[in-house]
Amino acid sequence: MAGSTFGTEFRITTFGESHGGGVGVVVDGVTPGVDLCEADVQKDLDRRKPGQSDLTTPRQEADEVSLRSGVFEGKTTGTPILMLLHNRDARPGAYDDIKNKFRPGHADFTYLRKYGLRDWRGSGRASGRETAGRVAAGAVAKKLLARRGVSIFAYTRAAAGVTCESVDTDVIEQNPMRACDLQAAGEMARRVSELRDAGDSAGGIVECVTVGLPAGLGEPVFDKLDAQLAKAILSVGAVKGVEFGMGFDAANMRGSEHNDAMRADGFATNHAGGVIGGISTGEPLLFRLAVKPTSSVSVEQQTATVDGAETTIRTEGRHDPCICPRIVPVVEAMTAIVLEDFFKRQVALHA
Amino acid sequence: MAGSTFGTEFRITTFGESHGGGVGVVVDGVTPGVDLCEADVQKDLDRRKPGQSDLTTPRQEADEVSLRSGVFEGKTTGTPILMLLHNRDARPGAYDDIKNKFRPGHADFTYLRKYGLRDWRGSGRASGRETAGRVAAGAVAKKLLARRGVSIFAYTRAAAGVTCESVDTDVIEQNPMRACDLQAAGEMARRVSELRDAGDSAGGIVECVTVGLPAGLGEPVFDKLDAQLAKAILSVGAVKGVEFGMGFDAANMRGSEHNDAMRADGFATNHAGGVIGGISTGEPLLFRLAVKPTSSVSVEQQTATVDGAETTIRTEGRHDPCICPRIVPVVEAMTAIVLEDFFKRQVALHA
Amino acid sequence: MAGSTFGTEFRITTFGESHGGGVGVVVDGVTPGVDLCEADVQKDLDRRKPGQSDLTTPRQEADEVSLRSGVFEGKTTGTPILMLLHNRDARPGAYDDIKNKFRPGHADFTYLRKYGLRDWRGSGRASGRETAGRVAAGAVAKKLLARRGVSIFAYTRAAAGVTCESVDTDVIEQNPMRACDLQAAGEMARRVSELRDAGDSAGGIVECVTVGLPAGLGEPVFDKLDAQLAKAILSVGAVKGVEFGMGFDAANMRGSEHNDAMRADGFATNHAGGVIGGISTGEPLLFRLAVKPTSSVSVEQQTATVDGAETTIRTEGRHDPCICPRIVPVVEAMTAIVLEDFFKRQVALHA
Amino acid sequence: MAGSTFGTEFRITTFGESHGGGVGVVVDGVTPGVDLCEADVQKDLDRRKPGQSDLTTPRQEADEVSLRSGVFEGKTTGTPILMLLHNRDARPGAYDDIKNKFRPGHADFTYLRKYGLRDWRGSGRASGRETAGRVAAGAVAKKLLARRGVSIFAYTRAAAGVTCESVDTDVIEQNPMRACDLQAAGEMARRVSELRDAGDSAGGIVECVTVGLPAGLGEPVFDKLDAQLAKAILSVGAVKGVEFGMGFDAANMRGSEHNDAMRADGFATNHAGGVIGGISTGEPLLFRLAVKPTSSVSVEQQTATVDGAETTIRTEGRHDPCICPRIVPVVEAMTAIVLEDFFKRQVALHA
Repeated sequence: MAGSTFGTEFRITTFGESHGGGVGVVVDGVTPGVDLCEADVQKDLDRRKPGQSDLTTPRQEADEVSLRSGVFEGKTTGTPILMLLHNRDARPGAYDDIKNKFRPGHADFTYLRKYGLRDWRGSGRASGRETAGRVAAGAVAKKLLARRGVSIFAYTRAAAGVTCESVDTDVIEQNPMRACDLQAAGEMARRVSELRDAGDSAGGIVECVTVGLPAGLGEPVFDKLDAQLAKAILSVGAVKGVEFGMGFDAANMRGSEHNDAMRADGFATNHAGGVIGGISTGEPLLFRLAVKPTSSVSVEQQTATVDGAETTIRTEGRHDPCICPRIVPVVEAMTAIVLEDFFKRQVALHA
Repeated sequence: MAGSTFGTEFRITTFGESHGGGVGVVVDGVTPGVDLCEADVQKDLDRRKPGQSDLTTPRQEADEVSLRSGVFEGKTTGTPILMLLHNRDARPGAYDDIKNKFRPGHADFTYLRKYGLRDWRGSGRASGRETAGRVAAGAVAKKLLARRGVSIFAYTRAAAGVTCESVDTDVIEQNPMRACDLQAAGEMARRVSELRDAGDSAGGIVECVTVGLPAGLGEPVFDKLDAQLAKAILSVGAVKGVEFGMGFDAANMRGSEHNDAMRADGFATNHAGGVIGGISTGEPLLFRLAVKPTSSVSVEQQTATVDGAETTIRTEGRHDPCICPRIVPVVEAMTAIVLEDFFKRQVALHA
Repeated sequence: MAGSTFGTEFRITTFGESHGGGVGVVVDGVTPGVDLCEADVQKDLDRRKPGQSDLTTPRQEADEVSLRSGVFEGKTTGTPILMLLHNRDARPGAYDDIKNKFRPGHADFTYLRKYGLRDWRGSGRASGRETAGRVAAGAVAKKLLARRGVSIFAYTRAAAGVTCESVDTDVIEQNPMRACDLQAAGEMARRVSELRDAGDSAGGIVECVTVGLPAGLGEPVFDKLDAQLAKAILSVGAVKGVEFGMGFDAANMRGSEHNDAMRADGFATNHAGGVIGGISTGEPLLFRLAVKPTSSVSVEQQTATVDGAETTIRTEGRHDPCICPRIVPVVEAMTAIVLEDFFKRQVALHA
Repeated sequence: MAGSTFGTEFRITTFGESHGGGVGVVVDGVTPGVDLCEADVQKDLDRRKPGQSDLTTPRQEADEVSLRSGVFEGKTTGTPILMLLHNRDARPGAYDDIKNKFRPGHADFTYLRKYGLRDWRGSGRASGRETAGRVAAGAVAKKLLARRGVSIFAYTRAAAGVTCESVDTDVIEQNPMRACDLQAAGEMARRVSELRDAGDSAGGIVECVTVGLPAGLGEPVFDKLDAQLAKAILSVGAVKGVEFGMGFDAANMRGSEHNDAMRADGFATNHAGGVIGGISTGEPLLFRLAVKPTSSVSVEQQTATVDGAETTIRTEGRHDPCICPRIVPVVEAMTAIVLEDFFKRQVALHA
């Protein structure tokens, strides 16, 4: 099965490369009769676009969305919604060096092995730019979820070795790291700037919490809520792991300690992260993901040419020293897409 | 979309509950003309079945597989293979107490919320017994992968607070914890026994390494190799997280440090865990999963009745004090199922 | 994608061959809390089973269904339902002659070309026996549809050159041809008997009408109601064509004549057969299918051996002289499966 | 499952309405490394576009395709191909009358019932204009099939009561009816013109033959070659039936007459139409489809308003008096899409 389509009842198909004719998405299965305009979508795209701060790539892309179908007189019609973004700041000339060398940490080598040829302008289809389509689709999903009282917040929990001690969702959009703790955010920014100036990059941990979910979402046994979310999150470039609730720390707990006791009014704790047996518990849905440090660094690295010779490379150019702040809206988008699909599937089961 | 089917070209559908008429699987898309007999499948089922040692539940299930279709004169025909296991050690009477109480950590509450009713014998469909079908299907996938030179090894990397320092795949089947280090295995077994005797349970970390994979497997952008594996692994009960290569530790690394340099003869390191851009690199595929401590514990716990009253519960009975040793063959099975599917999809793309 | 699974929210997977360990089906996505027992299913299986009359094959198969999972205390649980039928009247010895010869009209040649080997006992997976699983799944779908006020009637409209002039659904089960007109039924039976006695066989036309459907079912653009039904019906062996409403006769009509005028209380005519633009109109859903004459005939036929030599063959044995009466319940089942799925999908869209 | 995606390994997703921001398609799963340019696609789009002759609608649409992604340096990259067509000759003003009235034979009523609202400009998503995306995708499939030696020819076999006696594929593009017999073509054209001048329309029969197919394509049991083609063909608007080989005439044949005898060098006849048991036989694949007369006629018709009042309507405007000539490239496209998918699936099965 071709791999650029995701979801069942609420279903998205993305297309496009970092250079060339643009990127975008087709969203199918959208509830008809819901208000939707480009501004609804642009809001989230602006959180993902480059050039937001001096902690993101200075690459310039307006990332203006054009909504081409599936909406009539300001309302969704239930038919596929095409959203298109043009590529503007394309500089293929800047990529001549990487045409013949594999950039360490990038998908240059694996794409060539998979396809037998590759679009060496930027990262082609493997570019983070593909996620603009996901964010656009996620904005549609968020509109539908808002009607259900569901809210999703992702934020940088840790980066460059600095961890947020507290979680204040109000401050997320007030700092360029999209951290959940202003004090930690300042220290993160300082360290990320240092790494950037040294031609290097930082990784981090992004956390996502969803509130307002009812109990009962998720489809046993393979399409468990956490399983489908894990796929959605790992499908985002640079993500190397995901954990729910206590996650890897659960490995060191005793059962009597990890189990969430139940009270008459709900769960006493939420070690499970809002999902048990692959079905939502009604508690906040909580997961974290590991974000690797940006592969593009300008310090010299050992690599090979496409012809198999050893060489070195410096990935000069305009890159994010830490991708966490820009991955935050992508994580929210993928979460929204998964959740909206499960709402529809739950209703279908009981129909 | 109903959730008991997994995979595209190599596709499995499981069915069955812990009590009642048995469990099993239909495997569709199997390469025709391959030798297959029940013994091939039984071998892995025996590694999953209860009662293997005093560190697993003493529940008795022969778990004998009956291969009912899709094989003719000892060879696969390319048509669906039904494999069926009867339930023998079913004691519905033993579950009277849990009929009206939610067991903490179990899916009792979420299933009731999802479906509006639940099969309260054992865990019904949420039982780990469902994974017998996966192991049977995985055994078929392993047969196909063996022809490709691919081998999969899962093992307990840590449990009950004890971590294996070294990895020796030869010792996995020589100790009841299926740990990869005999010295650590002994200490693990001791601590797990203590917890069991105290009516409690332990969690752990299972690691899985696959060797012999070529570069080029995985389908951008949503069906990335690691994304699909993450779904497969999180779809197994008790798993709370998954990470590839350096995983969550990557969050604290610099880009120049995390990137795997390339040499003329391949990668210098394997921090990526064998997958970049969602496509295999040709290096060993390596991931780890967090296993929560078994939910069934006999120490008294706070919980609620189905009618919303507060009460306490002791989950007496025959339970695994640590599920790691029995989850190992399930992890191998899900990995095999994912990989065989991607082999077929890669060939289809280039056809 | 492996081809033994059908449907999305209401989804079935069949397995099994005419000989060997039996046939059956897994049904996933069934609404939980609905009364279901084996007798509900057996009723339709009895209409499909061999040996019902002297116009069907004398092969003896009790076709007793065993319901193994997904039902608890007489109600569906929302988890997969396994239904299993054993093969009893298997006489592999009777097939020695056809092991090395291709039977004209059968899938012997095409299966060998597709798979490289074939199960030559009976027709293996290509046997009409596979449809028992469909009928069992269809019985479940019918239970769900009955709650919606939907009824499906299929019947033999024509066979052996005799056409029913009128449609009386009350007489369908009163005659062995399952014809909708008793007078025609008698003449059909006479001609079919003659053909049987001459070692030959007859084709026919089966018609299916569904009443009680609301307007609005069907998913543009590829999963149109008629498109999905066409697939479902053509997936049944021996079917060579399908048409909706006026069908092929529409080719000779003028637009002003074919269009169904609308009145305040609905459509004035139903030339469309209850579907326009791939969506149900609320009028009775009406389609017809062409059934080829049974391929197994005992008159001598020219054919080839598996080694490419020319030879002759007489397909002796126990065959249906006209498959129409037994295809009727299969058509109803496939229709029910398609419709139940679309009900669920329509609800999902609007959720 | 949302309904605008079709296929598995070779997979298309269409979007767009007759008015608004254009129509198009995303094609995923395309073999990498194959030459592809816009001219390859434009060629078939020109055969579908309006205004080709005085027997098609005089509506003016250049239907120029813009190929936006998935192609690099003239070759496919294996990533999704976006093809976009703008809407130019949109005259929403011309549709004021139909905003409040249901046009007989159109999907106005059913779309409103399904979605609760509808885009009343033209036929919105139900417009035949959506098929431009299919034709574009089909052109890509044809390029891939050409490498396999497969050729597809569709043509008008009958229209307005005139039937072609002979089949000469060389003349198809030489007459505006795309008929396969020049003599019949002239008579057809005359009658269609008369109907057009009378404000009425004609239906017809389109036939499609594919040569160069090997034996062995098609996936039992639900995804049979003919079943999947039937779905593909019935998913095209205006199609009311499909039949393979002898089709509905098979109902009147005896088994000994219908069975295709086999010779050492293949089949003696092709009554089956190139498919037995849902798998290709290697003989030419042959099917026919019933095309209803165009619903838009300017003679006065009885209908209802959206408010349920009785009224009359004349669908003035620019419509095809017979859609057969323009449906021909759509039929070829859908056939190509289905076949390319099955080629890939057959290779996957045997991998």
